[in-house]
Amino acid sequence: MDHHQLEEGTQLALDYTKLQKVAECDEGLVPAVAQDADTGEVLIVGYANELALKTTIDQGMATFWSTSRDELWIKGKTSGDYLEIVEVCVNCEQNSLLYRVRPKGAGACHTKGTNGSARSGCYYRVLEDGSLSFRKGME
Amino acid sequence: MDHHQLEEGTQLALDYTKLQKVAECDEGLVPAVAQDADTGEVLIVGYANELALKTTIDQGMATFWSTSRDELWIKGKTSGDYLEIVEVCVNCEQNSLLYRVRPKGAGACHTKGTNGSARSGCYYRVLEDGSLSFRKGME
Repeated sequence: MDHHQLEEGTQLALDYTKLQKVAECDEGLVPAVAQDADTGEVLIVGYANELALKTTIDQGMATFWSTSRDELWIKGKTSGDYLEIVEVCVNCEQNSLLYRVRPKGAGACHTKGTNGSARSGCYYRVLEDGSLSFRKGME
Repeated sequence: MDHHQLEEGTQLALDYTKLQKVAECDEGLVPAVAQDADTGEVLIVGYANELALKTTIDQGMATFWSTSRDELWIKGKTSGDYLEIVEVCVNCEQNSLLYRVRPKGAGACHTKGTNGSARSGCYYRVLEDGSLSFRKGME
């Protein structure tokens, strides 16, 4: 399946090898969920190591460890479309993070909707009867 | 640090080994975020394999793969405090899931607040100046 089909298609093709690949990074990582603090929308799930969390706090911008490029990823820093940190929350067992953010500039997802704008978040498709359909307003 | 300190304390002690442990499960897993579809609250982050996703759909209850017990975990099935599925969303790259749910019964977190009730979700503490404090209403 090519990138376009993966991102814009209706066929479910979950990459269940993802967390194996994340572990192969050889970085200490926890999942980090970014949520729009105003609308409640879950925007993106990334991974954070100690440096990413430190950078998130120091810069006030949601920062992840890019597990594909194996480098620090201050989301949107270059483009200006960053996710301003409102607060950083930690779960009960202290093995994941919730970044509550205010998106600046374009949407948090790298894909574009049919209106040509970046989608606000990555969860724009819903699983129904074994295939994917687009959530209302997120086509 | 004991369990009580980890869950109710104000000291940050993130377990950055979490995803290594998840990978050692030798299951194909993706992160699965459960969000209250009505309030928007991010409740819990778990992990799902193909069986967990299938069970989520078939039973209409948020289901994870327990990476500590290495077994299927239909959250709250025994107690009745389950998370009824409203919809299951998939991200752009198809390597994570978002369960949009309606919590039935007690809160989604296994910890109890100072009022003696289960907390609605796991993200009840916020990181401030290097230590944790309780979010308002989630003490």
